[in-house]
Amino acid sequence: MLHELLTSNRTRATPFTSRVEACGVQAYTVYNHMLLPAVFRGLEEDYWHLCEAVQLWDVSCQRQVEITGQDSQKLVQLMTPRDISQTDVGQCLYAPLCDENGYMINDPILIKHSQNHWWLSIADTDVLLWAKGLATGFGFDVRIHEPDIWPLAVQGPKAEELCVRVFGEEISNIGFFRGKWMKYGAASFFIARSGWSKQGGFEIYLNEFSLGEKLWDDFFEKGKDLDVGPGCPNLIERIESGLLSFGADATYETTPFECGLEQYVSLEADIESLSINALRKQKPKTRLVGLVVNEKIELADRSVLDEKDVIGEITANTWSPRYSVYLVYARCDANRILALTELNLKSTKGLVKARITDIPFNFVTLGLSNQS
Amino acid sequence: MLHELLTSNRTRATPFTSRVEACGVQAYTVYNHMLLPAVFRGLEEDYWHLCEAVQLWDVSCQRQVEITGQDSQKLVQLMTPRDISQTDVGQCLYAPLCDENGYMINDPILIKHSQNHWWLSIADTDVLLWAKGLATGFGFDVRIHEPDIWPLAVQGPKAEELCVRVFGEEISNIGFFRGKWMKYGAASFFIARSGWSKQGGFEIYLNEFSLGEKLWDDFFEKGKDLDVGPGCPNLIERIESGLLSFGADATYETTPFECGLEQYVSLEADIESLSINALRKQKPKTRLVGLVVNEKIELADRSVLDEKDVIGEITANTWSPRYSVYLVYARCDANRILALTELNLKSTKGLVKARITDIPFNFVTLGLSNQS
Repeated sequence: MLHELLTSNRTRATPFTSRVEACGVQAYTVYNHMLLPAVFRGLEEDYWHLCEAVQLWDVSCQRQVEITGQDSQKLVQLMTPRDISQTDVGQCLYAPLCDENGYMINDPILIKHSQNHWWLSIADTDVLLWAKGLATGFGFDVRIHEPDIWPLAVQGPKAEELCVRVFGEEISNIGFFRGKWMKYGAASFFIARSGWSKQGGFEIYLNEFSLGEKLWDDFFEKGKDLDVGPGCPNLIERIESGLLSFGADATYETTPFECGLEQYVSLEADIESLSINALRKQKPKTRLVGLVVNEKIELADRSVLDEKDVIGEITANTWSPRYSVYLVYARCDANRILALTELNLKSTKGLVKARITDIPFNFVTLGLSNQS
Repeated sequence: MLHELLTSNRTRATPFTSRVEACGVQAYTVYNHMLLPAVFRGLEEDYWHLCEAVQLWDVSCQRQVEITGQDSQKLVQLMTPRDISQTDVGQCLYAPLCDENGYMINDPILIKHSQNHWWLSIADTDVLLWAKGLATGFGFDVRIHEPDIWPLAVQGPKAEELCVRVFGEEISNIGFFRGKWMKYGAASFFIARSGWSKQGGFEIYLNEFSLGEKLWDDFFEKGKDLDVGPGCPNLIERIESGLLSFGADATYETTPFECGLEQYVSLEADIESLSINALRKQKPKTRLVGLVVNEKIELADRSVLDEKDVIGEITANTWSPRYSVYLVYARCDANRILALTELNLKSTKGLVKARITDIPFNFVTLGLSNQS
């Protein structure tokens, strides 16, 4: 849904905002109190371009919570049920943060610069306050703040070629979910092979506001023949790829197990984590499932039904132009969904059957071609 | 500035959203992960209507952080440097929340339902996480959550008359910044004489989503002759009235003293507050001042200068149609502003002199008539 957005000093602009506007951004959303571009040429056109070329994403709103000091790793481990003890310097870890009852606070990427220096690259909640509150209460020896860092994501199949042109061959040596500091003129940015799409690419952690426009322009100049363009996290691509959005698909009321994030909970590890004991005992009440409908529908509302009762709610949905199916994430009653293989959605033309499947969607298992 | 806003399940709708849209909302902002209407008929038209009639404001985004349990008051006191020990049941207190260095976290209204039951009616940061982090770390016996409550503000000189028609004469007995539970059919809402304007009125803490549309319609039906209309926090009115917006005028980098909030810091009281010792010692580095220009200007940028150097930044600004002056809030270097009586702003036509004054503006002292 599109409405007008009134911006102010409270909804912060970024080092790239002037360029994003010059590129004709059509819509924004607000994320971590900051502008996040949401549409450029159109949802579907942006999607195809992302999957075929290379895009620059102003994801400055992916704020960093920086934790330094001798209790840093202890605090980070306390916040997440994922075992971080084996993390290498420069490694990036996707990790749910949970409270003492196992409920999620956020799902950041943890970046280890050293034992005593971590960044939490966060989704849309004020993790800064959670970390500071815990550190103050427990009396940890840490310093926690939000540094002036504005990530720029370079995403798409041609992202690597473009980044090599801007940063040199060495960038190709960065492994998946690994990062390192690279020179850019007199500056030095942390760059990781990561990003909120499955099209490949890097995230550049810009640390000088004044270099934002130069960096943006540099990518455009060197990427003309690669069809570089502006972009942003894309609803179609992220649902096809099985990525979750905190605040929609995962919330304060859900545990990692209820979001299909089992692999990021180290149940067997001997770790000092706030949530681990609760998560060891807890039986999921809800389950996030994928639903597939073989036609383009218009939803009448967000409810999900078994034969007659509402047993869940849609958290995200999109038409997939690649697979020609309608894809839905739905949060359902974990018990009532157990024996079912399909559910009903309410379309404007009446009830529509939807196949239940896992997230991420497995389009091969679903018998769907990968070609448009 | 207006742009398109892309809404999603993450930017939550409210019980009043359907009515807000039916009333022709022109723009939203996003506040506490929720839609906040920002313009209806136009900033200036909305302003005059607010000052002359009565408006319904969907301020559902003013989320409640509910704290219950035997350590509730202890935790609330820990979070704020304002002495809360003499607070009555049903009393509302404006109170800065600060960290152990005296820097602000938020500036909520604290509402005391009992010693062991508080609401924090918050500005735009996740106080829930700060409170939970502290409580977990200190091991307090409290339960903290965000209940399903969506405030509706009724603001304007005719607000009381309208509220009497909807809730009965008894509502007139509620004192300023006091509240009580009042019946609405089978439901019961907490209602306080408060709101983010100086035009008078009430805030109704709706606690049943399904009653939102009925309540809205009820106000409209009973207020036709009072010219009731839709509204929202208004930039012109709030600046004229000296109200601060957290995230713009006050931030994580400012102390209450640096925001002119001295009266809400109980320096002399014997209280267990995280920030009180830091605030007792600290010398303000910046100061938030009011600036007045005797003509309508268009800003070239947000910088504020003494004779030649940039010594501050504009945090909020508006043309005042009532006083025919341009009003600015600016954060300035506390030392460099000491001996000054005027500063320079950069307008599109060059430097413009601005008189330095306090916030709230005193229009009588400024020699400005209160009449348009």
